[in-house]
Parts: sequence; C-alpha cells; structure tokens
Amino acid sequence: MKEDSLGHTTSKLKVIPLGGLEAIGMNITAFEYEDSIIVVDCGLAFPEDDMYGIDLCIPDITYLLDNAAKVKGFVFTHGHEDHIGALPYILKQLNVPIYATKLTMGLIELKLTEHDLIRTTKRKVVHPGQSINLGKFRVEFIKTNHSIQDAVALAITCPAGTVIHTGDFKVDFTPVFGDAIDLQRLGEIGKKGVLALMCDSTNAERPGYTPSESTIGKAFDQIFGEHKRQRLIVATFASNVDRVQQIINTANKYGRKVVIEGRSMVNVISVAEELGRITIPENTLITLDEMKNYPDDRIVLITTGSQGESMAALSRMAAGLHKKVQIKAGDLIVFSSNPIPGNEKSVSKVMNELYEKGADVIFQDTHVSGHPCQEEIKLIYSLVRPQFAIPVHGEVRHRVAQAKVARLLGYDSKHIIMMHSGDVLELSDNHAAIAGHVQNGPILVDGLGVGDVGNIVLRDRQRLAEDGIIMVVMTLGSRSREILAGPDIVSRGFVYVRESEELMDEAQEVVEDAVEKCLRGKSSDWGRIKTAVRDDLGDFIWKRTKRNPMILPIIEEVSE
Amino acid sequence: MKEDSLGHTTSKLKVIPLGGLEAIGMNITAFEYEDSIIVVDCGLAFPEDDMYGIDLCIPDITYLLDNAAKVKGFVFTHGHEDHIGALPYILKQLNVPIYATKLTMGLIELKLTEHDLIRTTKRKVVHPGQSINLGKFRVEFIKTNHSIQDAVALAITCPAGTVIHTGDFKVDFTPVFGDAIDLQRLGEIGKKGVLALMCDSTNAERPGYTPSESTIGKAFDQIFGEHKRQRLIVATFASNVDRVQQIINTANKYGRKVVIEGRSMVNVISVAEELGRITIPENTLITLDEMKNYPDDRIVLITTGSQGESMAALSRMAAGLHKKVQIKAGDLIVFSSNPIPGNEKSVSKVMNELYEKGADVIFQDTHVSGHPCQEEIKLIYSLVRPQFAIPVHGEVRHRVAQAKVARLLGYDSKHIIMMHSGDVLELSDNHAAIAGHVQNGPILVDGLGVGDVGNIVLRDRQRLAEDGIIMVVMTLGSRSREILAGPDIVSRGFVYVRESEELMDEAQEVVEDAVEKCLRGKSSDWGRIKTAVRDDLGDFIWKRTKRNPMILPIIEEVSE
Repeated sequence: MKEDSLGHTTSKLKVIPLGGLEAIGMNITAFEYEDSIIVVDCGLAFPEDDMYGIDLCIPDITYLLDNAAKVKGFVFTHGHEDHIGALPYILKQLNVPIYATKLTMGLIELKLTEHDLIRTTKRKVVHPGQSINLGKFRVEFIKTNHSIQDAVALAITCPAGTVIHTGDFKVDFTPVFGDAIDLQRLGEIGKKGVLALMCDSTNAERPGYTPSESTIGKAFDQIFGEHKRQRLIVATFASNVDRVQQIINTANKYGRKVVIEGRSMVNVISVAEELGRITIPENTLITLDEMKNYPDDRIVLITTGSQGESMAALSRMAAGLHKKVQIKAGDLIVFSSNPIPGNEKSVSKVMNELYEKGADVIFQDTHVSGHPCQEEIKLIYSLVRPQFAIPVHGEVRHRVAQAKVARLLGYDSKHIIMMHSGDVLELSDNHAAIAGHVQNGPILVDGLGVGDVGNIVLRDRQRLAEDGIIMVVMTLGSRSREILAGPDIVSRGFVYVRESEELMDEAQEVVEDAVEKCLRGKSSDWGRIKTAVRDDLGDFIWKRTKRNPMILPIIEEVSE
Repeated sequence: MKEDSLGHTTSKLKVIPLGGLEAIGMNITAFEYEDSIIVVDCGLAFPEDDMYGIDLCIPDITYLLDNAAKVKGFVFTHGHEDHIGALPYILKQLNVPIYATKLTMGLIELKLTEHDLIRTTKRKVVHPGQSINLGKFRVEFIKTNHSIQDAVALAITCPAGTVIHTGDFKVDFTPVFGDAIDLQRLGEIGKKGVLALMCDSTNAERPGYTPSESTIGKAFDQIFGEHKRQRLIVATFASNVDRVQQIINTANKYGRKVVIEGRSMVNVISVAEELGRITIPENTLITLDEMKNYPDDRIVLITTGSQGESMAALSRMAAGLHKKVQIKAGDLIVFSSNPIPGNEKSVSKVMNELYEKGADVIFQDTHVSGHPCQEEIKLIYSLVRPQFAIPVHGEVRHRVAQAKVARLLGYDSKHIIMMHSGDVLELSDNHAAIAGHVQNGPILVDGLGVGDVGNIVLRDRQRLAEDGIIMVVMTLGSRSREILAGPDIVSRGFVYVRESEELMDEAQEVVEDAVEKCLRGKSSDWGRIKTAVRDDLGDFIWKRTKRNPMILPIIEEVSE
C-alpha cells in the first residue's frame, strides 16, 4: 500500500472486464484492490454465426489464474446464462467461493450438479440488502428488477471508493413478485459519493421507459378471454418465472390446466417452486401425458422455443417432430417474447410452420423487455450521481447510446469511460485511466472440447463450408520414385460428382500432368509434388467454377 | 377450347407460381390460358443460412420448358432483384420476349449486357397505362408506388376473366418522382369485375399506413441542418433512386458536393440519370478522388452497404478496408434503411465498427417501407373487389396476415386462396381450385455452377462446417492383402492437432486395430475395411469429444 504525504492510502481500484463489452454475453468483470480480487458474474456467450460447430464461448481467465491467490470469490447479479453460464468451466480452473441471491444460486446449483462440482464449491446465498466482506472489498447486494427474479445491483466498496454495478435491470414499480428496485438505497449510497457507475446499456437506444412486467398479465387476460375454445400454447423464456406465474394465474382464472414443456422450463420452474419463487395453485399442473384427458379449451401448454431454437420444444412441435404434441388447426400459439437479434429468421421459420399447420399465432404486445430505456438510465444516474460513467452490458452501439444519455446529464468525455474487454481501468477519487491490458477473449467450447478449436480449425471449417474439399491421394515407391497407385481424386461438399463427370475427368488430367511433370523433372520431393497439385488443380477449379475448395494432396510411400 | 351448352367458353385460367410463396424472393408466376402462357417476374432469392457457399437461388422452370411453345413472354412489375434477378439464367434456357417499364428495363439491360444476352433478347418498354397483347392475354400496366421507381401492377385479362397482380407496392399520395398509384384505374377495372387479386403481403402484419417516401426528405433536412460541420455518409438501397434524389436535393440545399460509391449504386444512378429518373444539379457530383479537394462539411457520400453486406462499400469503410475512404472521429453515418430480417447482426457489426472509429451513427426515423400496411391493403381490396383473394409476396406468416385482413373485409375461406409454389390454380367465374402441382424449387447457383450443388453436397458442407473431416489413408497390396503404407490420419476442421496429440495417437491405434482385425479375419474386402474404420473411429471420436466429424477412409491398392 502506498501513502501520499498526508498518510492517505493512494492505492487504486482496478476494474478489469474480461468479456462482455464487444457483444451481448460473456459478462465477467474483475475488481482488484491491492491483494484482493473479486469477480462479478461469469457468463457464457453464444457463438457468432461464423464459428461453425461451436456450442458456446467462455471467457479466458488467464489473468485470474495468474493472480489466483488474490481471488476471493465470484459474486453474481442474476441467473441468466450470459452471467452464470461459464461458471462450471471456470470453477474447474479456479475453485473459489461463490455468492448469489436465492434464485440465482438455485440456477447455479443446477449447473454445478450437472458438472459434478456441487460438493467441492463453497457457496453462500445473500439476500438483497445484505453485504459481504471479501478481502479488502465490501459488496452490498441491492434489489433491482429484471426479466428474471432476484436480480441485484452491487455496490462494491474498497478504500479507493465505491463502484455501483447495476447488472441487467429495469425499473419496475409494480413487479409481479417481490419488491420494486431499491431506489432509496441507490440514492443513499449515491449521496455518500460513488466513484463510478457501471450501468446496463442494452436498451439505451430506446427512448422512454420499459413497461412493467405486470402489464403482460393484462395482455394474457385479454388473449385468454378472446380465445376460450382453442388450445393455447404460450412460448416464453424459461427463466422468466414471473411471466410463467402470470400465465398460470390467467390459466387458473379461465379454468385451464397447465402443462410445462421443454427441459430448461421444467428445470427452472421446479427450482423456482422449491424456493417459493412461484405459486402454483393445487390441481393446476398436469403432465404432458395427462393432456389427452382434457379437452383443448381446458389446456394451456407453456413451452420453451420462443427464439426458434431448433431443438426446443415449440420448434419440434412446429416441425412435426415432437413426440407428444401435434399442432393442429385451431391451436393458438402465443409468442411471449421478442426475437433476440440474430434469431429473427429462426423465429419466422417456426411461425411459418405453425401457420402451415393451420394454427394461429399471436406475437405482438405480449412481451416487455427486462432492460432500462433512456429515462430509466437517467433515473439511475440521477440517484447515483457517479464521478465516472462506465456503460456496460451491450455492443458498442448500445454503450455509445448510454454515453449519449450520460452526456445529456452533463458528463463530459473525460468522465465517460468507454472500455474494451481486457482493459485495466484504474480508479480513485477524481481519477480514472486505462492503465494496461490483460489477456482476454473467448475460449471456444465444442462438444467436450474446451479450447481445442481455435482460429485455424475455424478457418478450415469456414472454407470447407463454403466450397468443400478435394483430396488427391497417390502412392509412390520409395526407391523408384514412381506412382504405384493413384492419383485418385475424392471430393466432399464440392460438386455432385455424377453431374460433373466432365469436370472431374479434366481435373484428373490436370493432377496427372502436375505429378508427372514433377517426377519427370526429377523433382520427386513429396512437398513439391503436393504444391504442384494444389496450385495446378486449384487454378483449374477456379477457372472453371469460380470456387475455391480446400485441396489436400496426400502421398503414401511404399518402401520397395 | 371447350364450350358449355350455351356456347360459352369454359376454359379456365391457370395461375402457377413457380416460386416466391414460401420465402421472400424468387418471385415468378405463370399465367396459362389454353395455348398461351405469360410469366410475371423472374426473381432470384438469396440463399438460406444453411445453404453454405451458395451465391443465389433461381427458380426451376421445368414446367415452362415443357410448355415452351406456349410461352409468349415475361412481364415485369419492377426492377428489384427478387423480381428480375434470375432472368439472365432463365433466358439462357428459354429465350422469349420481355416487357417492362422504363427503369425496370434499364436495370434488366444492365444484367443482359453482363451476361452477353443483350443482342439476343427481344424486349419492349411499356408505359404505365399501356396494354400489350400476348397470345390470348391482354396485360395492362398500372402505375403503383414502391421503393423503386416505375413499379406497376398488372391487370391480366383472358377470356376467363381478369386477375390483378399488384407486384410490390405501397400507396404514396405524394411520391418523390412521377405520379401516385393509379387508384382510379384500379377502381375502374374493379368495377368491371375482377376474378382474383394477387396482393403484396410483406407488411400485412403491420396496422395503419406506410408513410410517403417524401417524408424522408424532411428527415434528411433536419439531419443536414443539425450536423453542418461533419462529413456525412448516407447508406441506402442502391435501387431507391427517389431516396438518392432526396439526399442530393438536401445536399444541394446545404451546399455539399455528392459522391456516389458502391458498384450497384453507381450503376443504378447512371441508368436512372440516362432515363431521366433522377435530376442531379450541375456541379453537384464529384468523384471519390476529388473528395480530398473539399472540406468535410462540404461533402455527402452516398453509399451501398446499408444491410451490412460484407463486401459493400460502407462495410469496407467500417472495417478499415476501403481503399479511398477512411472513417474518422466526427463522421456522421446515416443508415437510411431498416435491416432486412436476417441482416440485423451484420448491420450491428458495421455500426459497432463505425462507433469504434469515433464516428456517430443515425439509424432511426430515416427510412420508410415500400410495402403496404393493413389499411393500404384494405384500400386496394375495396377498389378492386375481387372474387378471390390470393395473398402473395411474403412468407406464410405475412400471407396469413393478409388473409386475416381479407376476412375482415368479408372474404370467407373459400374465397381466400392460400397457394404454395408449384400449385396450379384453376380460375374462372366464381370458381377457384388447386388442380395440380408442377415441379418447382430453388436451383442453387455457386460461382459459375448452376444446379451442380444439390442436397447431398449441401449436407456434406453442413457436416464439414460443424465438425470437420478426418481422412484415413492406407495402401494395401493387391495380392498379399497386406498394409504397405499407412493407415495415416489427416484431419481438417476437427481439432488443432498439436494440442490434441494424445487424442490423435489413440485414434491411430483405433484405426490400426480396426484394419488389422479385418485383415486377420480374412475380411480383406476393401468395403468392409472402410466400414470398420468409419464405425470404430466414429465411435471413439464421439465418445471422447461428443463430435461427429465426417470420416473418409481411402484405400489405395498397389499391384504386386
């Protein structure tokens, strides 16, 4: 610890986001003060479109491993995948205690059980309003609202000052479950002085306020009231327990039984019920198999698949692949969701399939966002009044939109910090500066493999996807340097060979010429033959087809 | 020709959409009456996400080729790619005359020149209000409005009755160029009796009216007025000449020079100028090279790339790959467009890159659609009052939305015809029935190849993209049935081999065991060896990695 001339501590707080600032997802931020590091959230990201075959992305925590002795634990803002999803992978590398609110911990425990980490992970449930001490940090959990229950903002205090991290949130004065966001406490902490505010940017491009979750209850009431004779199927996010609660309430009012379908929906609701986060009236829930005992107008099916995910329950129903639910004319499917950017086409595909089967679909005015619009962001800034604004949670465009809001509130560019993942921000009273950069970036998970698919493999997959592969196989004699078998051409993903016989015959000639030229020129170095085949065949194929398949010459050598 | 007992003709009109009804794009519809066929539009579709490597899709016109002698020509509603883009490919198979309005023909001619078809294609420019006779058909071109000039609806009349095909349209009472949609004539024809209305469904899910194109002029005026010191870059659709006209008008008002950038934008604007479809004041246009002679606040760059297309000019600027335009802090980029569904992420990527370079971006309230919302659809139905409603142009969801509008107007399900591509609809007075189905579906274009990539090749590409390929190569003696070389394992797109040495070593053992077992068992049939390798290695890889790469055993045989 350094001291200035007055004996005050001069150590700075370091804020190091290891992900989450370039795209939606993979939220993880380290806070470091002297010998203490705490980490906020540990999320996964879903792969970009060109990351073929990748299941998910997790953060690179090299910096934490290098400073493992300092790391006091993970604290979580809420239980969405982009905030908790990478935890099992990370705990295998760095086993530290974890701190979360009730439902968040419940959802984390589902994962830990699946990864066989439940017995080895130290964990503590924290209630909104409580604080915990972790090394030189004190972390207060502050009630917020979001599209999942038990979301909190964190007030992170160390001798250098206090940072408020909002997590994902909205301002909901009339939430379905529990209290509204604790605006009083945010104001109280703000009044005492806050170094920096790290605030959710997801909706910062949108003017106005996000409506309350409870407004959706009225929408359901209207839909149920107007469609009393049809079977109802409602698709929504598995983790939005309040949404499911409202569907169940409406079902109960209209005398319908409720079926819950889709693995993640079943999991979340059973955790929520155990924790008292959802109230299901007796004799309301029935199983999928019991559905046949009730007429259509006595049933609501609540299901996953609102994003058109190909393996989700609703998508399987729409495609006619679900084992127990057949969509039929007259069914009404309600999408209680908006497509997340990138999912528009998948969602449309599912809707089109439902319409083709004669079902009707409602997808307008049946969803509200869980993130703050511009006026809510202004409200939080006005309560917290931080020295520095650090827009987080969102792509650059969203964070820039929050920066614009901050500017309207009087913040100049010196007091708005636009960070990149890996940046080391040093903060202390009236001081903020990017002081370094640490290793970061997505680690790709493909099946059981973590990190064994990197850029080279991905580039190969992209090329294979684009134009396929042509293999040229031949056997050469080790002494005679002569062709003993081949060259044989085999292709996959290039052309349908039977319809391109002429092309493939000519390709054969091109390859034979290339090999012969090498052998005749005494240049029987295998490497040179491969290069000649690759170049000549590649040129020929490009000229004839304007395609660029991967060309892979393989030479087998037989000792003579 | 058949006659009924009163001597009236009883031949029916056949309407055969060969594409365009399952997805946006590939619009082409044949109208057949006795010995005459006319074809409305001949569009391409852009490939679906899982059609790896495919450049575009064109319609299968087997039915037209089988009835080539009947085909009198192609008539076009407007010059967008999804209505004219497949024509060069189709004309090579079926050379018939083409009929289109001025700008539409100008854009078609660009394509015909490129494909060296301009001298061999008979073509005629038709003006809105004119009619042409094609065999037993009379086709009247009726002025409409759309996001491209010279769009027309077609009134297609034969002895069985009249069908009105709207093409893509909107109702614009105050268009930027030329006249408003000819509502009077639609009413007049409607009054005489119309068999069926084939109406654009793209926006049928949206209530209200689409605003006039001219409202965007005011938006530009405000943006130019509020950003007088910055360089302005406006991205929009190359074919929206009226949009470009409004940008040029505003530029002129604010004393800015205009640069046009992006190949398709340059092409369209030069055709439009030749045809008098755009008015560019003298000394307004400058070249990209001349830009350096003017300060930033005297320049507007109008560019392609509003959809985030990776090779378009704006995307190259944003990525820092454009040779002549560097984005810099202070630049203002206006997206005068909405992302077409599916392009949201690409557009966001470009915006993020622009923000990262310090530029500012405006993308709200700077675009209007070219398609009719629900009230406009109601207006057209009320003028035309067809016997039958045939929603076209859109995915199933959009066409169902139009069907709902038609139902509100009193049409029952017998009078709303939901067609699929390839359906043969027979129409006559008070009669409509699907009477058959003809071959249809997309033909895939990949580079120079048309139709040589089919489902098998696509499935291979999907699998290669997902998990890569493992090749197992070995040389066997023809007489000894012994392994002379190999087995060697080569993989691409599977794992980064250097980091997975152990896995690959074990894989080698698995393969050797499989081959040896076959050879020991005297089962030296090459096919059996291949099957054993594929099965055993596939099982091993799945168990160890939960991945399913393509496994390709290749056996070379050396005669001994």
